[in-house]
Amino acid sequence: MELKNDLILRAAKGESIERYPVWLMRQAGRILPEYRAVRNSLSGFKELVETPELAAEVTIQPVDLLGVDAAIIFSDILVVPEAMGLTYEMVEKRGPWFPKTIRSKEELKYAETDFNIEDRLGYVTEAIRITNKELNGRVPLIGFAGAPWTIFCYMTEGQGSKTFSVARKILYTDPDLAHELLDRITTVTIAYLKSQIKAGAHMLQLFDSWAGILGKDQYAEFGVKYIKKIADAITEVPLTLFSKGAFHSIVDLANLNCNTIGMDWQMDPVSFREVIGESRTIQGNLDPAVLYGTHASVEDLTNKMLHTFKSQRHIVNLGHGVYPDIDPEKVKTFIKTVKNYEIIY
Amino acid sequence: MELKNDLILRAAKGESIERYPVWLMRQAGRILPEYRAVRNSLSGFKELVETPELAAEVTIQPVDLLGVDAAIIFSDILVVPEAMGLTYEMVEKRGPWFPKTIRSKEELKYAETDFNIEDRLGYVTEAIRITNKELNGRVPLIGFAGAPWTIFCYMTEGQGSKTFSVARKILYTDPDLAHELLDRITTVTIAYLKSQIKAGAHMLQLFDSWAGILGKDQYAEFGVKYIKKIADAITEVPLTLFSKGAFHSIVDLANLNCNTIGMDWQMDPVSFREVIGESRTIQGNLDPAVLYGTHASVEDLTNKMLHTFKSQRHIVNLGHGVYPDIDPEKVKTFIKTVKNYEIIY
Repeated sequence: MELKNDLILRAAKGESIERYPVWLMRQAGRILPEYRAVRNSLSGFKELVETPELAAEVTIQPVDLLGVDAAIIFSDILVVPEAMGLTYEMVEKRGPWFPKTIRSKEELKYAETDFNIEDRLGYVTEAIRITNKELNGRVPLIGFAGAPWTIFCYMTEGQGSKTFSVARKILYTDPDLAHELLDRITTVTIAYLKSQIKAGAHMLQLFDSWAGILGKDQYAEFGVKYIKKIADAITEVPLTLFSKGAFHSIVDLANLNCNTIGMDWQMDPVSFREVIGESRTIQGNLDPAVLYGTHASVEDLTNKMLHTFKSQRHIVNLGHGVYPDIDPEKVKTFIKTVKNYEIIY
Repeated sequence: MELKNDLILRAAKGESIERYPVWLMRQAGRILPEYRAVRNSLSGFKELVETPELAAEVTIQPVDLLGVDAAIIFSDILVVPEAMGLTYEMVEKRGPWFPKTIRSKEELKYAETDFNIEDRLGYVTEAIRITNKELNGRVPLIGFAGAPWTIFCYMTEGQGSKTFSVARKILYTDPDLAHELLDRITTVTIAYLKSQIKAGAHMLQLFDSWAGILGKDQYAEFGVKYIKKIADAITEVPLTLFSKGAFHSIVDLANLNCNTIGMDWQMDPVSFREVIGESRTIQGNLDPAVLYGTHASVEDLTNKMLHTFKSQRHIVNLGHGVYPDIDPEKVKTFIKTVKNYEIIY
């Protein structure tokens, strides 16, 4: 199916664009009353993730309601560990919780790799197919997965953490176990992303939410190494790498086979660009808290952010997921400002 | 009283040292069974903080039991907001919680500045006096406070948070309120630190635990600006600034009137030293998770860390507080390794 708006794909590849493409991490979610209406009719978050028709519906909502230049499939990075054998629960106000964890070689049995993706994650690929059918080429659809290090954090720690000290302990006490588990996660993630492409994802993003809790050397060994395997395997569609907080590893990431590097709001676009040059597109990086301001201030700070990038290789986004209590009207102002911005470089 | 071991003070000032001084953030605390014995005999954490004899006892424990080169007074950064009028509770496994918060000009009444430090925080200065008497000059005593930005985070958010989006929202919606509150916190913090010096603190550290959630410009405006006021006011004893995660603002911090800059474990000592030069001492930065490893591995990785600093201007510490489930014997190995390390530069 031909895309009517392929701006984000051209920006990712470094091709000419007439204006910057814009979307928001977590755009399909709690900020929209229309999302909450769907979500509240269900037993829980996981029911929404696992029901393709409804996942497709909330995926399309921000395209209809906010006017973003891309949809991102509504799902969760934790569907991968679940498919491997570690089920999770989403506890209201607390986040994910895994009844079982992997902290020993014996427990590696909960990290299966020998299964068919469609059998266990068919609800995601089905949601992709339905979404594309309903979008009818209006905008591209982004698929995604968690990066192996972040998935490893949850599979070992079993829940969110300020320090992920259980996960990091294993890197020192049993690096072989760590590499074996990371390798298994990588194998499944590649197969999962390939299925998403086959189902119709036009581009992919890898989220490494907990990259920032490792120093440069450990992130090279336990993070970047596995991201590289995935980046080398994904050749069909543009790939975005977003390693939150990995200020020390930006060059290493930009040297991988990818098109776009995501950038959080703490990093400075000017020095970021100096470091990675013009060979990659940068995605980001408005502070999500800017959207708490007035419409005038959202417009002003969005324009200021756009100025600092000074390059066509830019996909506009926030520096992290949109906060749940943001007024959707402020999001519209952000998007409108980006769409009105004249590229002069 | 004359100090028998003033190694850390000489290291802070850039004077000659025969070996590196070493201590650990959170050394007085849950890793020691002797601490837990004291703590478990009480109604809660706050009773320990507010009882000078017991605070002094747990402050001295790591000097006796671990052999560190400095004591740090057992207290909490949240005693400052409490003295200002915002009481907190320490909820087991959840952390601090403030029944009241400051999110409007009306609520600024909970941020008093016009009070006598000894009246409201006399339990801290008394603990300092008792500690020094009992230490009898064995090692210097470090006093501390939270940096204004981090205290602001708790006073507005009312609890810990992954994003501190309530605190950051105010920076965009009511910067005047933010500056007024930060200014008040700064005023009280300076008076509080001066009282600690008067009571006998030999050096001071400012903890900015949440520095890393702001970008460079906002941290300059709402963080560094107020740290500068404090640094300019503290002229009597050496001052250490530890702004966790503020990778973008290291130079700005090093240019303030301070002796030592703290460094978390994610940052790289070589590039950190390149950036700040030899005009300041660096404190850090072993990954706290290293202490989960074997004794041999703790020794090996501690030596590797020491090698990378290549300067006498180094106070050895972890890159963050020691984790509560660390075996004190591993801490001893860390300390012994530092003490045996021959300075060759």
